[in-house]
Amino acid sequence: MVGMSDDSTRGWISGGGRDTTQLDLTSGGLVPSPRDNRQVSGPAPVVTHDTVQVDRSVFSSDRVPSPAIATGDRAPDPLADTGSVDVSGVRLRPVEHHLDEILGAVPQPDPIELAVLDAQGLLCAELVTSQRSLPAFDQAGLDGYAVRAADIATATVEQPVDLAVVGETAAGDGEPASITAGLAQKVAVGAMLPAGADVVVPAAWTDQGAARVQVFAALAPGSYVRRVGDDVATGDVAVEVGTPIGPAQISLLAAVGRERVAVRPRPRITVLCAGNELVDVGAVAGPGQQVDVNSYALAAAARDAGAEAYRAGIMPNDRRRMVELLEGQMLRSDVVLVAGTFANGGHDLLQEALDELGGLTFTQVAMHPGPVHAFGKLGPDAVPVICVPGEPVAALVAFEVFVRPAIRLMLGKRQLFRRTVQAVSAQQLLSPLGYRQYLHGQVMRHPDGGYVVEPIGDGDQAMLARMARANCLIVVDEDVTEVSAGGLVTVMPMLLGG
Amino acid sequence: MVGMSDDSTRGWISGGGRDTTQLDLTSGGLVPSPRDNRQVSGPAPVVTHDTVQVDRSVFSSDRVPSPAIATGDRAPDPLADTGSVDVSGVRLRPVEHHLDEILGAVPQPDPIELAVLDAQGLLCAELVTSQRSLPAFDQAGLDGYAVRAADIATATVEQPVDLAVVGETAAGDGEPASITAGLAQKVAVGAMLPAGADVVVPAAWTDQGAARVQVFAALAPGSYVRRVGDDVATGDVAVEVGTPIGPAQISLLAAVGRERVAVRPRPRITVLCAGNELVDVGAVAGPGQQVDVNSYALAAAARDAGAEAYRAGIMPNDRRRMVELLEGQMLRSDVVLVAGTFANGGHDLLQEALDELGGLTFTQVAMHPGPVHAFGKLGPDAVPVICVPGEPVAALVAFEVFVRPAIRLMLGKRQLFRRTVQAVSAQQLLSPLGYRQYLHGQVMRHPDGGYVVEPIGDGDQAMLARMARANCLIVVDEDVTEVSAGGLVTVMPMLLGG
Repeated sequence: MVGMSDDSTRGWISGGGRDTTQLDLTSGGLVPSPRDNRQVSGPAPVVTHDTVQVDRSVFSSDRVPSPAIATGDRAPDPLADTGSVDVSGVRLRPVEHHLDEILGAVPQPDPIELAVLDAQGLLCAELVTSQRSLPAFDQAGLDGYAVRAADIATATVEQPVDLAVVGETAAGDGEPASITAGLAQKVAVGAMLPAGADVVVPAAWTDQGAARVQVFAALAPGSYVRRVGDDVATGDVAVEVGTPIGPAQISLLAAVGRERVAVRPRPRITVLCAGNELVDVGAVAGPGQQVDVNSYALAAAARDAGAEAYRAGIMPNDRRRMVELLEGQMLRSDVVLVAGTFANGGHDLLQEALDELGGLTFTQVAMHPGPVHAFGKLGPDAVPVICVPGEPVAALVAFEVFVRPAIRLMLGKRQLFRRTVQAVSAQQLLSPLGYRQYLHGQVMRHPDGGYVVEPIGDGDQAMLARMARANCLIVVDEDVTEVSAGGLVTVMPMLLGG
Repeated sequence: MVGMSDDSTRGWISGGGRDTTQLDLTSGGLVPSPRDNRQVSGPAPVVTHDTVQVDRSVFSSDRVPSPAIATGDRAPDPLADTGSVDVSGVRLRPVEHHLDEILGAVPQPDPIELAVLDAQGLLCAELVTSQRSLPAFDQAGLDGYAVRAADIATATVEQPVDLAVVGETAAGDGEPASITAGLAQKVAVGAMLPAGADVVVPAAWTDQGAARVQVFAALAPGSYVRRVGDDVATGDVAVEVGTPIGPAQISLLAAVGRERVAVRPRPRITVLCAGNELVDVGAVAGPGQQVDVNSYALAAAARDAGAEAYRAGIMPNDRRRMVELLEGQMLRSDVVLVAGTFANGGHDLLQEALDELGGLTFTQVAMHPGPVHAFGKLGPDAVPVICVPGEPVAALVAFEVFVRPAIRLMLGKRQLFRRTVQAVSAQQLLSPLGYRQYLHGQVMRHPDGGYVVEPIGDGDQAMLARMARANCLIVVDEDVTEVSAGGLVTVMPMLLGG
């Protein structure tokens, strides 16, 4: 992420003077696709680095402008515009700035107490100290004979020590037994150690006798004995604040007697989508209409990230009802997530509704796909509302970049971001200068070590079938316009539940 | 896993003649622990490789016998035994044999149909073909002007082509528009492409005029146009059988109009624990009693592995009620998981109950901790019942080794096992010959690359607090008795949800 500035407009106006004949403009793609027409007949690019005030002569055919370019905090209506393209007014916001604003504003939900089994996967929100000792009593560490170490000090296989077996203690027997010199008590693993005994001889090191037992080996005092508090002493810390609760922690919590534990709760996220063109999955889409996929996909992604997601579906096409719906959902949500096509004005019913609740700032974020984003806190409770692009591929990319880290922050996780690896690109990649590009890809291990990644599709935002075949996002930095085949790129493997 | 045979008894009877002074027998541990007494006074080891018929002179102090040694398929009552240790009768079953039996016997639950959101994380069990085309109509790929490519063939920044804007189509508009030569229609991304247009000029490549528009670049026909079926054509396969369903698949399923989808269901696993000594977490443990931790820990582990787990708690201490409980749980379960201390007879109420339902084969598996395992199919429906050791640490190790792969197999996952890495051991590790040892450890990246692992604790099965600090299992093969500090070991990182 080098050489990026908040007000950079270089993304789509500066070509850097390089050869454009390898670029593919025929399908909106930034990455050449073999099936596409290679014909390009745009104007020759002009080098104009680091300029903010730009004249029209710098329009360059090797830069694909973002679909929606807003000026300032509200998308202008271009039809009300008098025909001038105020390029210098387009301010691109670095991805990190937008992310930081969101991470800085999401709430830290109060801890809740859950049954230990329901706490699985969450972070402990209390310091759990043990009110008990584990073990609670001296006990046998394995099946064998409880004896006095002094009695068997000379025992060998050749010259076993012979002891009288005076009884047997099973696990769970609550009656205290005791032995004295020359005696042995048969014990099961977990059984109370008889008073007087200080060692348990493993059964296999004896003749396993019933009335008398021959011991074949000497043992140091304490061998195969579990003493009170060996595992956890009363007052010991069992689980610390911030520890992820998994089966081992649940085991320990149960052992110290906890049926419930305070945890960081799953954030409650309501997912809405907005757009005149949207109809629900069950409906038959009429001419010009699109099925709502975002409320499903984003709710699924939010659950996968650890949130409790509510799919509230498509926004009503009426400002009053929109405001009511948003108000209702904000009451029950830690975050409201809205997917929609907001840019370029004219369809700003949602923006009016959001304004009524306090207003969001729509910004151009320096990323591809889907640069138009918004974030703000709305309503009396200042509930964070995150708006992501309505194109389904861009919506899921935006989720990865902004929403998943926010969910993990609310969960209290230390690792907010997916790990990335460096991979060799199997193909040449082209990327718009000034924009961080996220491309879906398939990453695999290279037989000679390391990773190889292949982009899937050509970057078109509408390609759901291709996205579904991806197992990673390829991240091309803002200052990189081209990655040659064989070059290294950053790859973010996207494992479910990871 | 070299040099192991099904009937090997070398595990605890053969010392291989190596120096035993570094071994620690004082706390039942196989790994030296700094706080422990180093005194060892066992008999000198005798080299007896590859022998099955063994005499007593080979008892060796550097081998810790497993706590429970059964002969054949049922634990004998050693008190009924006449004192002879029939070592050659102990048959150790290789870990893989036991695993294979379980994997070969677990059911493949029938596919069920779920709402797409509930299908997340499961594997698709049907071939989903699209009944629709995506897109359903030719549409604009971004905001701009729909024009005829022929009209703008000469457009450059210096000599723009000027067209009359005859209207505007927003996303969702269902009324077909059309243009002819010399005309342009303003279009939003996703809007229907007007008849006659074959290209969309990105707004940023124009002067964004209202009544007339100046176009600065030529474009090949089809540029920024999404054609019917470009993404998915009618009849195309959208999601294949066996595909894991994540947000991207849910996005695609919604887009092709699916509200429900057939998936491999989560296996239903009932978790029970057995033992006279057990009391529920909420209860006050009396003398000799232990809190039931296994039903919690194993249910949590089963959920983490993807199962739907029911914690049925502690078995009643009565054979009749035990049989009824088991029968009831088997009716509603794909697998029943029972944790208990079964070995060495005498406390075989559970074994009698299991016998009444068809009987399980208890075997000594060549692993540490917890060698006593059982598996069988019980009742009229032949429901698989897996018995794992009752020691909580051994129970969770057994879960990792046998139950988690079985759950993943039932889920239809291709990858049944956790990935392993080779790591440098920070300490010397000792391991019983003939047993595959699983030690909890902490694995971390080495600054110079690769991984370093440190064992946690000394291998005592009762150490829950130590287990809770582990992030991996160290696996020491059956034929390895010692790993020196700095040597390589196999490590199985245990990420939650992984």
